[in-house]
Amino acid sequence: MAQEQITRRLARYVLESRFEDIPENVRHEAKRSLVNFLGVTIGGAHHEAVEIALAALDEFSGPRTATLLGRAEKMDILHASLVNGIASTVLDFDATQYKLTNIHPSGLVLPAFLALAERTPISGAELMHTFLLGVEVECRLANVIFGKNNPGWHVSGAVGGIGAAAGAGRMLGLDEDHLTRAFGIAATQPGGIREMYGTMCKSFTPGRACQNGLASALLAGKGFGSSEAAIEAPMGFAKVLMNVTELDGLTENLGTEFEIMFNMYKPFACAIVLHPIIDGCIQLRNEHDLEADQIKSVALRVNPNVVKLAGRENPDKGLLAKFSFSHATALALVHGAAGEPQFTDALANDPVLGKLRQRVTATVEDDIVKDSCHIKITLTNGTVLDRHIPHAIGSLENPMSDQDLEDKFLSLVEPALGVDAAKRLVGLCWEADTLDDAADIARATVKN
Amino acid sequence: MAQEQITRRLARYVLESRFEDIPENVRHEAKRSLVNFLGVTIGGAHHEAVEIALAALDEFSGPRTATLLGRAEKMDILHASLVNGIASTVLDFDATQYKLTNIHPSGLVLPAFLALAERTPISGAELMHTFLLGVEVECRLANVIFGKNNPGWHVSGAVGGIGAAAGAGRMLGLDEDHLTRAFGIAATQPGGIREMYGTMCKSFTPGRACQNGLASALLAGKGFGSSEAAIEAPMGFAKVLMNVTELDGLTENLGTEFEIMFNMYKPFACAIVLHPIIDGCIQLRNEHDLEADQIKSVALRVNPNVVKLAGRENPDKGLLAKFSFSHATALALVHGAAGEPQFTDALANDPVLGKLRQRVTATVEDDIVKDSCHIKITLTNGTVLDRHIPHAIGSLENPMSDQDLEDKFLSLVEPALGVDAAKRLVGLCWEADTLDDAADIARATVKN
Repeated sequence: MAQEQITRRLARYVLESRFEDIPENVRHEAKRSLVNFLGVTIGGAHHEAVEIALAALDEFSGPRTATLLGRAEKMDILHASLVNGIASTVLDFDATQYKLTNIHPSGLVLPAFLALAERTPISGAELMHTFLLGVEVECRLANVIFGKNNPGWHVSGAVGGIGAAAGAGRMLGLDEDHLTRAFGIAATQPGGIREMYGTMCKSFTPGRACQNGLASALLAGKGFGSSEAAIEAPMGFAKVLMNVTELDGLTENLGTEFEIMFNMYKPFACAIVLHPIIDGCIQLRNEHDLEADQIKSVALRVNPNVVKLAGRENPDKGLLAKFSFSHATALALVHGAAGEPQFTDALANDPVLGKLRQRVTATVEDDIVKDSCHIKITLTNGTVLDRHIPHAIGSLENPMSDQDLEDKFLSLVEPALGVDAAKRLVGLCWEADTLDDAADIARATVKN
Repeated sequence: MAQEQITRRLARYVLESRFEDIPENVRHEAKRSLVNFLGVTIGGAHHEAVEIALAALDEFSGPRTATLLGRAEKMDILHASLVNGIASTVLDFDATQYKLTNIHPSGLVLPAFLALAERTPISGAELMHTFLLGVEVECRLANVIFGKNNPGWHVSGAVGGIGAAAGAGRMLGLDEDHLTRAFGIAATQPGGIREMYGTMCKSFTPGRACQNGLASALLAGKGFGSSEAAIEAPMGFAKVLMNVTELDGLTENLGTEFEIMFNMYKPFACAIVLHPIIDGCIQLRNEHDLEADQIKSVALRVNPNVVKLAGRENPDKGLLAKFSFSHATALALVHGAAGEPQFTDALANDPVLGKLRQRVTATVEDDIVKDSCHIKITLTNGTVLDRHIPHAIGSLENPMSDQDLEDKFLSLVEPALGVDAAKRLVGLCWEADTLDDAADIARATVKN
């Protein structure tokens, strides 16, 4: 059976891949992802969810060798992977793959790789290469296994540990047998259910996946035993979680097609399914100088995922509001913006937005693609405004430029580090693959 | 909907339960479980899987306040929960609930509770009560959610974190809201796929569940947010993992029926589904002085789970041999025993056993109950020996006595601690609910 060796073949690819064989545009996309990751992680580094995680777990840290990105403290490499993973996704502003399913690839793997880089020096090129490989593994798992009929897995959490184990195992020098078993140890720790969206557990799950993946590589490296067919076996990962047996896509075109090329970067700090709506509503607001009390109703026609993943009604927290199409619509129309400063508890409870939310309806249509939507606003004076967004800003067809990404980064990082340090850090990212010591990156995230 | 509040109702029960309301026979069963747990955990404390886990993770330990049971070292409470959880199940000799599904309740929760007891003193009664409550929660989840159509979840790993979170949260003084969220944080970390059976990950999974549950309670205690309907929500634990929506059994007869009464204790150090076969084969061997080369064939008629869960062919490791009906049959017929000393790599590769294994066949029949089997041995001289085991030794209908349990305990613990210390420890267990300081138990597992 062709599937017999899938876990092993993925592990072998991770070990045999050479950075010099990876095309320049792919390497550049990894840098764009690094810029975005560090921006959102430093921006989220002092979020309440991070503070609480530290209040609960800091006392249990082992040797403090790994930087908490954007903070003064260090923790052991396992806890740092968890905490930096939480920070990376707590703003819901991180890079997103949104092909067959939804996954936020960077924060699932980079915290572990950065923590290891502070422990045993490696070059920037090796870090960036490892980053690409971790993303490759986890995104293939996400799309091939969770691409259809997902009953409610938080896909990032389910696959992230395997991606982190893949890269961490390579960094730790595991051979093929040991790395195959590292995949197995990670595969038996799948995390995340979608009920947690809108709660702090939404960001806990990716952090935990990253931590679990690192632990899996450490265990496998010392000889901990596991299945060597964890992904494809009859009671393995793909079958147990998703009843999926068709797994050829996991290994097709390895080394010639690269998952990171499907990373999208969010201009808005909320669920990606809401981006076309926000894009269109901001356009209409600005073109027509709309005010909340002029708006009689908003009728959206959207991809089914909008209602499935972001159907929260009457959110009363900023985190929940990131998963509410009615709130996003109201926010865009009233405030003309949907950045991190807009997704607050205060605005979630704002009466003007609350009233406008009640006038928003959504109809789902299977043939509306994910980065698209139709907006129809009826004003109290009877005027009807229409807008079709074929591809939202930030989508693959309408991507953020390098400069857009740098501006987003600076807007998130300058408040934390100041202008000079923020600019220095983004400069390090753009030249990451030439650094002698990859740990310079983590160190540069801390205010002097 | 009646299910609306299930997670909350379970949390409330955990907080409102009073030890004095729990019947004496139930409290006694908790002591029997404690005896068995400590025996198998100390017996497994120096297993290769434990040693490797320590080699990989020990350097990352935080403050070393928690005893590694049966060992000289201490680790932080989270790592100790993992490592003691691994040790508790690595011999596959721990207590088993085998009602609608298979779960090993004790090792999923006790490591966390014992670690907390060493950190903040509590009475033995409170420890035993917490133990009962953790078992109650996790076993109800196992039976109600995973009782039918399990595609391959390692059920202990899937539910154990919630049981550990329940008891740890109570010990940490969480109120109902916080404990409900602790359930949620644990519910989004379900672990374990059955492909791992026969590998070290089989014991890693329960240990990790215990560690995750403790972390969930610590996080919730500091205010980490989560869903308050994690078990019953449309994209919650029951639905995502098992597509189960009928959850009334989770809260029926809480406080009047007790799951621990279904704990069984293994006389044999392998998968419980193999026990009727081993029981019968040892009987026939002893009655007829059988030798391997007299046996032409062995035809088993068994419950379907035997082949599903323990169908390993030609195991080449002791751990794999614990999940092989053909190996168990050969072992019982040739050696007349199936304790921990028999499940070695050497005997897994023994040519006499290997040849005999080839002559064993199993036919599954749905109406053969789980603790039963039919054995038909055909000898080379044409003689046919039949044995029907209606209820294997160790089953609920044919249980091990307190003395049997103590003998099993001593056989596992005396080699590690010596006779006097072993007897002192088992004495502490039998009077556990009268101890002033529950931490005496963990301390007494270490050789002076």
